[in-house]
Amino acid sequence: MDAAWVHRAFEKIGAFGRGPRGHSRLVFGEAEWAACEYLAAEMRESGLAVRTDAFGNIIGRREGTILGAPAVATGSHLDTVPEGGNFDGVVGVVAGLAAIRRLAALGPFPHPLELIVFRGEESSRFSIGTMGSKVMAGLTTVQKWSGLKDVAGITLAEAMAAHGLRLEAIESAVRGTTDLAAFVEMHIEQGPVLETAGLRVGVVEAIAAPIRLKLTVRGVAAHSGTTPMNARRDALITAARIVLAVQEEARNRADRRIVGTVGALQVHPGALNVVPGCVELWVDVRGIDESHLREAGDAVQGRARQIAADDGVGLDVDLLGADRPIQMDPHVIGAIEASCQAVRVPFRRMPSGAGHDAMNMARICPGRQSQS
Amino acid sequence: MDAAWVHRAFEKIGAFGRGPRGHSRLVFGEAEWAACEYLAAEMRESGLAVRTDAFGNIIGRREGTILGAPAVATGSHLDTVPEGGNFDGVVGVVAGLAAIRRLAALGPFPHPLELIVFRGEESSRFSIGTMGSKVMAGLTTVQKWSGLKDVAGITLAEAMAAHGLRLEAIESAVRGTTDLAAFVEMHIEQGPVLETAGLRVGVVEAIAAPIRLKLTVRGVAAHSGTTPMNARRDALITAARIVLAVQEEARNRADRRIVGTVGALQVHPGALNVVPGCVELWVDVRGIDESHLREAGDAVQGRARQIAADDGVGLDVDLLGADRPIQMDPHVIGAIEASCQAVRVPFRRMPSGAGHDAMNMARICPGRQSQS
Repeated sequence: MDAAWVHRAFEKIGAFGRGPRGHSRLVFGEAEWAACEYLAAEMRESGLAVRTDAFGNIIGRREGTILGAPAVATGSHLDTVPEGGNFDGVVGVVAGLAAIRRLAALGPFPHPLELIVFRGEESSRFSIGTMGSKVMAGLTTVQKWSGLKDVAGITLAEAMAAHGLRLEAIESAVRGTTDLAAFVEMHIEQGPVLETAGLRVGVVEAIAAPIRLKLTVRGVAAHSGTTPMNARRDALITAARIVLAVQEEARNRADRRIVGTVGALQVHPGALNVVPGCVELWVDVRGIDESHLREAGDAVQGRARQIAADDGVGLDVDLLGADRPIQMDPHVIGAIEASCQAVRVPFRRMPSGAGHDAMNMARICPGRQSQS
Repeated sequence: MDAAWVHRAFEKIGAFGRGPRGHSRLVFGEAEWAACEYLAAEMRESGLAVRTDAFGNIIGRREGTILGAPAVATGSHLDTVPEGGNFDGVVGVVAGLAAIRRLAALGPFPHPLELIVFRGEESSRFSIGTMGSKVMAGLTTVQKWSGLKDVAGITLAEAMAAHGLRLEAIESAVRGTTDLAAFVEMHIEQGPVLETAGLRVGVVEAIAAPIRLKLTVRGVAAHSGTTPMNARRDALITAARIVLAVQEEARNRADRRIVGTVGALQVHPGALNVVPGCVELWVDVRGIDESHLREAGDAVQGRARQIAADDGVGLDVDLLGADRPIQMDPHVIGAIEASCQAVRVPFRRMPSGAGHDAMNMARICPGRQSQS
């Protein structure tokens, strides 16, 4: 019975925004709204009381037997990147509702149970990710987000207003630190570790945070035919050495769970017959321990500056962002492991390299006290 | 008198297509046509008989005293790259006409004298450079160029037809190998060698030719947070190693006058949180000796293949072009050196790293027999 319901839910949600190369449900777009409305209807049919907060996060709730007890919550998101897959986010929403349905079938539960569908987990539309959980955990303000626009020039406020939401009201969606007893989010791994190990479950101990840098190498553009090799200040040569240094610094810290990536690089002017005068690189360094992460970020910056100095070219370093890694609640970790053992599903503890709504929810759930 | 005429000519030509960041006179555009018409009028005023060939090359001619003698020719081009400088090409046209005016003032000359303004030396509009001299030297065909279009979708044939030229007729513009006794082109260096040496004249011994490659590195795109360093096949890491190998192979051949450049590089998908799955690199290797050039081009390809194999990623190699270096006529070299010595202007022999119309004209001038 449950399996059929789960399959049908994936099919129904997958139909919203489906295109030839994937699913496109950008936050506050028609396809994401339709998927949210479908899910709200499913929640109601499953016996949950459904409300929408000021940011449009959908909260389905089943009351418990202990008066005033904090809720045990689960959930994830239904928005996608452009042409995304059908499981990122959707798994956590569908599995969460399936779990609540099964618990409900077993009879009354002491704590209230909640399923939360967060809005705007993906940063694709407004360049900020995990928006709905940031609102709920009080990690943003109206002012911070009043300037956000999508590529078409539509502001966040306008996108929200199209469905009756008011940006000015989002601070009313903040939840207190006594509302929730625990939050747990099921999510696909988005990486190769479990598949390589032949495992189906990873129990997340910590969610890595990125330090993001934009590096601009300033050399001298010159004619590729007439400029001798020893008279060049080729910005792409310096950039190539920096790309390899980022890899080396991350590899040297593999035991400290550091990864480092140059994901984007642009060459100016970028012509076949011109020695590159300027190169921009975007660097993403992640780790699950704050001190190791900062040390790795500093090491990458130091190497880049040294390489540029050695090559006699200029270097600008812009720090785009430096978040803090989030440790997960040991009680929740223990409960997941005990459940896996009970049903004999092998698992391993692992960090999550990707960010999730759970990292914001950790700020308002009890486990936060145990964070280093 | 001549100096005032030269300054005025630069000013007049510079006014065609002038913008805030440079001069834009793309081949067969209005600004280039206007500059050509101005120059043709100046030629007529200087006593030359002016004709336009089937490609629009402008040929001004003053007959000599020996009946049927081949002409001594000079010239260059008036078209520019978008937002180019005012001296590339223009110097050779203005200096050539100034020289012919001065020779004419000295009385009759045994050989006919010609000033040629070549059309389409820059590849900016139709992706092919030195078009006018290629036509004149018989190095192309109507068929080869019938598919050429600019970025706006205008074909070469349409651009020519707008001013009464017919692409189908260009093969009638080919000149025989007995028409010209010599061709000489004055051109700015476009490099730092003369300035560094404090010299005003470089006597070109050979014009370098490029081997041009497009390399496509095929790795595996992955999430930058969830993919451990040792599980990656990052196309940008491989590309960075190739960039450095191109530099190394060229530097190792500095004594053989080889230069090598990666001028353009594109990362796919090119997002901060994605390990690059695919990188395209455009490589330009130049040399003045054909065997050294081919050896350097082979070495670059070999290094790229080895690096890709070591990194466990795919590599596609596309040869975009492989021209032959052109040796200049030793008699013309000797005449330029003798002239410099006569007026006590220090000079040095050097290669030209950039391509010029003179390299095509060498194919139909007597010095070609001495080419290696």
